Amino acid sequence: MKIKVIYPTMEDLDMQAERDFMSKYFSKGTEFDIQLLDYGSISVESEYDVSMATPDILKKIKEAEENGYDGVIVSAFDEIAVRAGRELVDIPVIGSFDATILTALGLADKLCIISYFEEVIPQFEMRLRVLALSPDKFTPIRVVHMLVEEIIPQKEKALQRLFEESVKAIEEDKAQCIILGNTEMTIVAEELDEKLKDAGYDIPLVDPNFAAIQMLESYIRMGLKQSRITYAPLREKKLKWYGDD
Amino acid sequence: MKIKVIYPTMEDLDMQAERDFMSKYFSKGTEFDIQLLDYGSISVESEYDVSMATPDILKKIKEAEENGYDGVIVSAFDEIAVRAGRELVDIPVIGSFDATILTALGLADKLCIISYFEEVIPQFEMRLRVLALSPDKFTPIRVVHMLVEEIIPQKEKALQRLFEESVKAIEEDKAQCIILGNTEMTIVAEELDEKLKDAGYDIPLVDPNFAAIQMLESYIRMGLKQSRITYAPLREKKLKWYGDD
Amino acid sequence: MKIKVIYPTMEDLDMQAERDFMSKYFSKGTEFDIQLLDYGSISVESEYDVSMATPDILKKIKEAEENGYDGVIVSAFDEIAVRAGRELVDIPVIGSFDATILTALGLADKLCIISYFEEVIPQFEMRLRVLALSPDKFTPIRVVHMLVEEIIPQKEKALQRLFEESVKAIEEDKAQCIILGNTEMTIVAEELDEKLKDAGYDIPLVDPNFAAIQMLESYIRMGLKQSRITYAPLREKKLKWYGDD
Amino acid sequence: MKIKVIYPTMEDLDMQAERDFMSKYFSKGTEFDIQLLDYGSISVESEYDVSMATPDILKKIKEAEENGYDGVIVSAFDEIAVRAGRELVDIPVIGSFDATILTALGLADKLCIISYFEEVIPQFEMRLRVLALSPDKFTPIRVVHMLVEEIIPQKEKALQRLFEESVKAIEEDKAQCIILGNTEMTIVAEELDEKLKDAGYDIPLVDPNFAAIQMLESYIRMGLKQSRITYAPLREKKLKWYGDD
Amino acid sequence: MKIKVIYPTMEDLDMQAERDFMSKYFSKGTEFDIQLLDYGSISVESEYDVSMATPDILKKIKEAEENGYDGVIVSAFDEIAVRAGRELVDIPVIGSFDATILTALGLADKLCIISYFEEVIPQFEMRLRVLALSPDKFTPIRVVHMLVEEIIPQKEKALQRLFEESVKAIEEDKAQCIILGNTEMTIVAEELDEKLKDAGYDIPLVDPNFAAIQMLESYIRMGLKQSRITYAPLREKKLKWYGDD
Amino acid sequence: MKIKVIYPTMEDLDMQAERDFMSKYFSKGTEFDIQLLDYGSISVESEYDVSMATPDILKKIKEAEENGYDGVIVSAFDEIAVRAGRELVDIPVIGSFDATILTALGLADKLCIISYFEEVIPQFEMRLRVLALSPDKFTPIRVVHMLVEEIIPQKEKALQRLFEESVKAIEEDKAQCIILGNTEMTIVAEELDEKLKDAGYDIPLVDPNFAAIQMLESYIRMGLKQSRITYAPLREKKLKWYGDD
Repeated sequence: MKIKVIYPTMEDLDMQAERDFMSKYFSKGTEFDIQLLDYGSISVESEYDVSMATPDILKKIKEAEENGYDGVIVSAFDEIAVRAGRELVDIPVIGSFDATILTALGLADKLCIISYFEEVIPQFEMRLRVLALSPDKFTPIRVVHMLVEEIIPQKEKALQRLFEESVKAIEEDKAQCIILGNTEMTIVAEELDEKLKDAGYDIPLVDPNFAAIQMLESYIRMGLKQSRITYAPLREKKLKWYGDD
Repeated sequence: MKIKVIYPTMEDLDMQAERDFMSKYFSKGTEFDIQLLDYGSISVESEYDVSMATPDILKKIKEAEENGYDGVIVSAFDEIAVRAGRELVDIPVIGSFDATILTALGLADKLCIISYFEEVIPQFEMRLRVLALSPDKFTPIRVVHMLVEEIIPQKEKALQRLFEESVKAIEEDKAQCIILGNTEMTIVAEELDEKLKDAGYDIPLVDPNFAAIQMLESYIRMGLKQSRITYAPLREKKLKWYGDD
Repeated sequence: MKIKVIYPTMEDLDMQAERDFMSKYFSKGTEFDIQLLDYGSISVESEYDVSMATPDILKKIKEAEENGYDGVIVSAFDEIAVRAGRELVDIPVIGSFDATILTALGLADKLCIISYFEEVIPQFEMRLRVLALSPDKFTPIRVVHMLVEEIIPQKEKALQRLFEESVKAIEEDKAQCIILGNTEMTIVAEELDEKLKDAGYDIPLVDPNFAAIQMLESYIRMGLKQSRITYAPLREKKLKWYGDD
Repeated sequence: MKIKVIYPTMEDLDMQAERDFMSKYFSKGTEFDIQLLDYGSISVESEYDVSMATPDILKKIKEAEENGYDGVIVSAFDEIAVRAGRELVDIPVIGSFDATILTALGLADKLCIISYFEEVIPQFEMRLRVLALSPDKFTPIRVVHMLVEEIIPQKEKALQRLFEESVKAIEEDKAQCIILGNTEMTIVAEELDEKLKDAGYDIPLVDPNFAAIQMLESYIRMGLKQSRITYAPLREKKLKWYGDD
Repeated sequence: MKIKVIYPTMEDLDMQAERDFMSKYFSKGTEFDIQLLDYGSISVESEYDVSMATPDILKKIKEAEENGYDGVIVSAFDEIAVRAGRELVDIPVIGSFDATILTALGLADKLCIISYFEEVIPQFEMRLRVLALSPDKFTPIRVVHMLVEEIIPQKEKALQRLFEESVKAIEEDKAQCIILGNTEMTIVAEELDEKLKDAGYDIPLVDPNFAAIQMLESYIRMGLKQSRITYAPLREKKLKWYGDD
Repeated sequence: MKIKVIYPTMEDLDMQAERDFMSKYFSKGTEFDIQLLDYGSISVESEYDVSMATPDILKKIKEAEENGYDGVIVSAFDEIAVRAGRELVDIPVIGSFDATILTALGLADKLCIISYFEEVIPQFEMRLRVLALSPDKFTPIRVVHMLVEEIIPQKEKALQRLFEESVKAIEEDKAQCIILGNTEMTIVAEELDEKLKDAGYDIPLVDPNFAAIQMLESYIRMGLKQSRITYAPLREKKLKWYGDD
């Protein structure tokens, strides 16, 4: 099984380190590679960033299918380019948002998403409405008040804030499961899990990278892809690509 | 008041005819102009088309604000580029989908959208979920089984099919209001309205062009624009535009 | 265009002042007049008051149609007499509650209504259920703890309390838009809007008078009225009017 | 226990026959009397009729409390004057609509209301939204296409149509319980129940008179009345009654 | 009318005292007897306890029908064995959870359940979802932090905590009605009701024993039982009872 | 990884054949064994059967944990013993119902469950409400009108009926994904999938065995189990097991 992972970012990353980090999420025997973007915003934090990244992601999804990949993940706690990408190809395309929520729903009745800063809350709430789940399945979304690019350099602070918000979600809002609302945060997932267990909170902490990759692998093993009624194949028609004349 | 109308299309249109047609939707004294796209699909019928059109629309929304327009409509029965556009500027940005539904909800309890072909139904249903309305406010979406580009050349057929589907929606599904689920269909709106009234169906027929333009004019008169909490202003950051090197 | 505005009150008002105040909500060229009630409670704050006011309002709605008005507004943050009035006439009839909510839904995802005192909250929540919107579109209704008749004489206090409750709604409940839940409060709408903007809250403040009047004007321009399937025309039948023998 | 039953009608009824008919719904030892209206429409079939009947019903509810009644039923498949009446008095006030739905919900998961003609469907659907039940608890409302005043004179036809619609509701829409959506229909309730059982449909048939009276008796035995937070006591204030000068 | 009351407990109770206590909930003339369990957990506080108690309760429900009882109540603030029991017999079977909620919904719009300790909250929330009511009909479930077996011996403490939580539910969460979320708590129902009224909270306090018994009596008087479409009669088939060889 | 599969049945099965059949659902390297019941109904088709099977399943879940299994599946298109079992052990416990629905929701917006006969529909609808998904995510449940024990002996008939109902679900109800609503049906899953694809329906067909096993394997790989807040650990207390004295 061969999987394409697309990072919707233009940051200058150490790709070997990324590969090493991601490899723990895949089952033995799965091949994968990671691809960054050529166009769009440097990182995705807004609907504007989502929109700018999408055409380039779609191109890469199409290439993945042409190059024999069995499935594609757009790795961000979002559904960037997923609906459009699913129209474009006949291999499964997965975003991290829905995969994480669906994974968590199998383990608890009331979920709390913790993400970075308040500006992203309305987007996440909109995506929950798209999934058509009852609002009583979620406690209010919480945030650590850090920028995306601060998470990794300030790992200890991120861990501490995630822990504090998790405890508040559990104690004040009666959350029964914590969802990391950002793929950068997965760097502290194991430590946070341990810290919560040590504090007596025996609940699932769902890591969006892990959830999405496991779900995609499962779909591939089951021979399943997106419904081509929900995501109808595209009619052939004229298109003028950005920058072309 | 000066309004920018963006048609998310690259078709070769008679712009004078378009202007004449659209002018009836605006109040006296409102200035407007219509702008077509430079990049993307020739027409918008899929999530893929939506995604490809969006960056170019965003550019045009930004330019509209810079050029002193008071508001922008993206004229398609959709919300193309609306969430992202609202983050980008401080003038109201409106799509035709939500405006039409909100207008219709003020007049009837059970609405039927009639659009062109079945492939678009899942997209429309997703957009209704985003609005978070109870499913019992809508009867099943109906379609006339025609392509976008067939509507205007085959006006009589479109009118006849719209009439037939409207009657079925009312008689079989108990619809109380008909929504034209496509901006091309507005060309037969008046005739269809008359035909329905003649057949004894005294219900609102809501034209998405009319609804969106009236709603935008109202917002401008009221001094209102999108909430900048829902649609947070963008952080300054690096972006590489399509085609740039 | 000629619009009838009904105030569901028997208070002794300075009608010239009212006309002057209301005139800013109408588009240039629109004629309107304001009519008070002859029977019922002095003001509307309860379901009882609503019930007592309704027969007289219905009489006035009927007269408005007979006298050639193009539409009627019952000006209260409620839907007093609207469903019954819509059965009675073939011109659009509008209440301020639904019009305001629908206007706000076009601009933000999470709304907060601020009204006068706690006793009205269950009524407003019932009206939201009638609209069949998901509860997650609204933060808890807030109140200023003032009587209707105190708002205008104690304008400064009303403004201050509205500002404080707005800030709490935004900061604590994550409201993205404020709705004035009372038509008297519109007297401080502009000042409140400015105060919120000055404090850094760039969100829509929706004034129910303005929203309802703009929506009615739009319906009239669009040639739309209520669905006569939702609001079926009345069968001719015997009726004994109050006070008749 | 002494109960006041208000019929929201001005028809000229044989009151002894009505008393005899209604007496079977009450427990032994309960006293009751029936009161007709002095003002309003001859019968209640529309929101207009509801509005016109309400002030007179409110007067009678108040008198019932003053005269020592333990509770009041407004006997119509509706909630006429109930919210306002509950603000006015400290004895339980009950309408037949909510009582019937709540009774049926205790016995089956999917209910079908069968009423007289199509014009009433939007009103009933609105009342279901007020109760805030999921739409999937109800199959589409059905009707027998008869006027209120035809039910009793054309009893056999009513019975036959109710049976046919019940069978269609069960077979086509998967209804699990039938609700008589009109208090006149209770005249054939027993025969219809037998006919359904004979045809193999062992489901509850809920009679709105029976359900409302039993529920009110239970509330009185339990010492319960409406919440005075939901239905706040009225402030003393000026009121001008219809016909007064 | 003869009613079987099943207590899903194996505690060693003073049955004469229980009979005396319960007798006030029944109408004059109703016969009833109380039966304890022979197998299962000593008390029911978890889904595990529910599961262990169910086969024995089902046996007793079947015996009740064979012995000519007119109806059965499983007396616990839950729906233990109710769905299965309803498949098994042709007499009405009632649990206290649904009966209490449906009774309360007839009197107020926003309900608060107060139960013993936090562990039961997810179960109760699941049962509310089964009823398919909108989440906005309920304020958060509250608890007194006491074990089931502590309620009766520490009656004063239970009363005090119930009072405090009721006040918080009303003042902080805007509850309009209090539901005792445990059948042991009914021992302080009258005192709590008085205390709340004395403190100025004129709202219904719903006792699950009283509500369930009154509802069952009403169903029996109305000749109603569960829908045999919702709860289909069982096919004859092989079964091996626990302990049999 | 070592998984316990419990079949909630007492039928006399060829266990080697079962093992061979099930082995395709597991990833390479996963060990599993299948266990049948010792007590309860011969097969599970009703809430009564569910209730009777549950204590024995709970015993087997506990034993699985004690014997070092990494997770348990109760293999039936239901959630038999899952909530109680999750309270009992600290390894993940999975039913096939929720796992299948969550898997399907990741691939399509509108799902159709096809099961055996009409009597099971209310149970399935109840389980969907427990998941708190919007009703508009599902088309009406369909059935093949066959008994559980007929599926395997009459494989061709089952296949044909499943195909016919799938086509009707897609064409008439606009289903976008088919869910096999019974674990016996998985015997024809591959043939049905091929038949649908051949007929032009390129949609996911979700097999409950495959979905549940994949989901459990994923949870084990991710180190996740049920939330111990949702499913609180049991208090130690007295229990009398069935058949004990």
